[in-house]
Amino acid sequence: MSNTKAYAAQSATSLLAPFSFNRRAVEAHDVQIEILYCGVCHSDIHQVRNEWGGSIFPMVPGHEIVGRVAQVGNHVKKFKIGDLAGVGCFVDSCRECPQCKAGLEQYCEVGMNSTYNGYEKDGKTPTYGGYSTNIVVDENYVLKISEKLQLTGVAPLLCAGITTYSPLRHVGVKKGDKVAVVGLGGLGHMAVKFASSFGAEVTMLSSSPTKEAGAKKLGAHHFVLTSDAKQLNAVKNKFDVILNTVSAPHQYATYLNLLTVNGTMIVVGAPPKPSEVPALNLIIKRRSIVGSLIGGIAETQEMLDYCAECNIVSDVEVIDISYINQAYERMLKNDVRYRFVIDIASLKK
Amino acid sequence: MSNTKAYAAQSATSLLAPFSFNRRAVEAHDVQIEILYCGVCHSDIHQVRNEWGGSIFPMVPGHEIVGRVAQVGNHVKKFKIGDLAGVGCFVDSCRECPQCKAGLEQYCEVGMNSTYNGYEKDGKTPTYGGYSTNIVVDENYVLKISEKLQLTGVAPLLCAGITTYSPLRHVGVKKGDKVAVVGLGGLGHMAVKFASSFGAEVTMLSSSPTKEAGAKKLGAHHFVLTSDAKQLNAVKNKFDVILNTVSAPHQYATYLNLLTVNGTMIVVGAPPKPSEVPALNLIIKRRSIVGSLIGGIAETQEMLDYCAECNIVSDVEVIDISYINQAYERMLKNDVRYRFVIDIASLKK
Repeated sequence: MSNTKAYAAQSATSLLAPFSFNRRAVEAHDVQIEILYCGVCHSDIHQVRNEWGGSIFPMVPGHEIVGRVAQVGNHVKKFKIGDLAGVGCFVDSCRECPQCKAGLEQYCEVGMNSTYNGYEKDGKTPTYGGYSTNIVVDENYVLKISEKLQLTGVAPLLCAGITTYSPLRHVGVKKGDKVAVVGLGGLGHMAVKFASSFGAEVTMLSSSPTKEAGAKKLGAHHFVLTSDAKQLNAVKNKFDVILNTVSAPHQYATYLNLLTVNGTMIVVGAPPKPSEVPALNLIIKRRSIVGSLIGGIAETQEMLDYCAECNIVSDVEVIDISYINQAYERMLKNDVRYRFVIDIASLKK
Repeated sequence: MSNTKAYAAQSATSLLAPFSFNRRAVEAHDVQIEILYCGVCHSDIHQVRNEWGGSIFPMVPGHEIVGRVAQVGNHVKKFKIGDLAGVGCFVDSCRECPQCKAGLEQYCEVGMNSTYNGYEKDGKTPTYGGYSTNIVVDENYVLKISEKLQLTGVAPLLCAGITTYSPLRHVGVKKGDKVAVVGLGGLGHMAVKFASSFGAEVTMLSSSPTKEAGAKKLGAHHFVLTSDAKQLNAVKNKFDVILNTVSAPHQYATYLNLLTVNGTMIVVGAPPKPSEVPALNLIIKRRSIVGSLIGGIAETQEMLDYCAECNIVSDVEVIDISYINQAYERMLKNDVRYRFVIDIASLKK
């Protein structure tokens, strides 16, 4: 077992503060990763504050993890010491159900083992995430990371990246498709990058005119100010796909009306209350709404390889771990372009 | 021009009563059909009572029309006098837009010309539907009807049939799929017949235990009483497809929870108010909701041919036109198994 320095929340109302614990010993199929960077996801805040219920404390958040392999078990085949490696939102799953067998471990019927705020396969040892100096994970749930990319920008690919890449692939976005992205945060900025890299004509939909320059810099071809009825009306029935990343309360109908026949709105943000859907908005154009949750291990690897090939990383602001509580406050005000990433070296000081 | 006997509503508050008008002369591409039977769709009531707004009076409802060709224009190729023929929910469309060119005339970007409560291609002559002795329609919008089937049961295929056949085909229902149908009315009973004929394992979901025997007679393999939490829980995450035909107010979440990973709920009923959708119910299993509106001419013909091949018709109660106002009242109480069909001979008495 190895002693691990971390930041943890002791309860739903406490700030994150220094914490230490022991990682499990490295078993035959495990790799131990010395964590270099960990992205800060909005879901970290939801879970730390127990906004989804059932939070397990103390909680060490973090599921956008990149680092170098420090130790490998006897049977490990994919990794050797010194390799770059990544860990996303889960560290294991049942491996037996149809979803696991289909490479859709995120939809595991038994339930995936979350990287934090969950339990290891033994069902009783709490999992601790990437706001820590190292992690021990079965190699089947560890991703290979290219040496070609800037590592700080790679960390958010493990959640924000795959959460947007997977549904865009699932609905088959291709060259020439008209794709709109709603919300320009950690997820939205990756959605713009991916959709434009797939050859789509990308429109940013935002209620804030200040987002236009940023969106276009990321690859958006058009910007529509959703508070301007005239601009909104001009894109009625226009989009093949809308990727809706917003988790604040909002009406789906506004966006559904912008979809063409057979158009699809992907939802990856979960507003605290149900959104209203007028059935006629779907019926009259055979429109659809589809949800999507991160991605499986194989597709996450595919996404990382694609990013290495196309030189795609997240735009990040690198912070020391001691800044994490302020970072949370800024995230709640959408004051980050577009993802905070913790430099884990700051934990070792 | 030919004088036509009909039943019409003179206003949103008046009962249907005898009416007469002139159909247009048969032009080069037109066929005139002597109507034999016309199905009574729930949307007839909505439109007669102006519940969707914009109703045009006097209104002759009816868009589930079957009859025999009585006259053909000089250039008509598909039909000859004496042929059986059918007309569904629209009698023309722009023919130029991408949807019309793709055979999806129901999604015509200019707007299809509704069989009633709309206008002819001239944009000013009101269309009158099938509660009448004859109709004149361009042959491209007329369906061929097999002599093999019982004609009374064919009429409802033109709306209730295609409305359920089209989305089941669109989402690719196949042998062994687990399909649930919500609502056992005109649409629902056709959905059960089609889904079971496609080889699916069909479950009827209903809040009324009295529906079980009827659903099973129609081909449902299972019946789940949705008011019984235990029964509902037993089918959680089970269905590949749910075809939701209910247009009364209801919560989508109840049914979404019954879908498996990648499962789809098709909505063909439009409740008067928007339904609430909790995003997480979609996200956690990559579930989707898709709307669907009737079907195009080519697919309607495919459906009619399929019905002739598989001996599928609607279960109907044949009525005289003089019974129509009582029939509407019974429909509002769901007191019909499963579709009223008007014997148009009763209009000629």
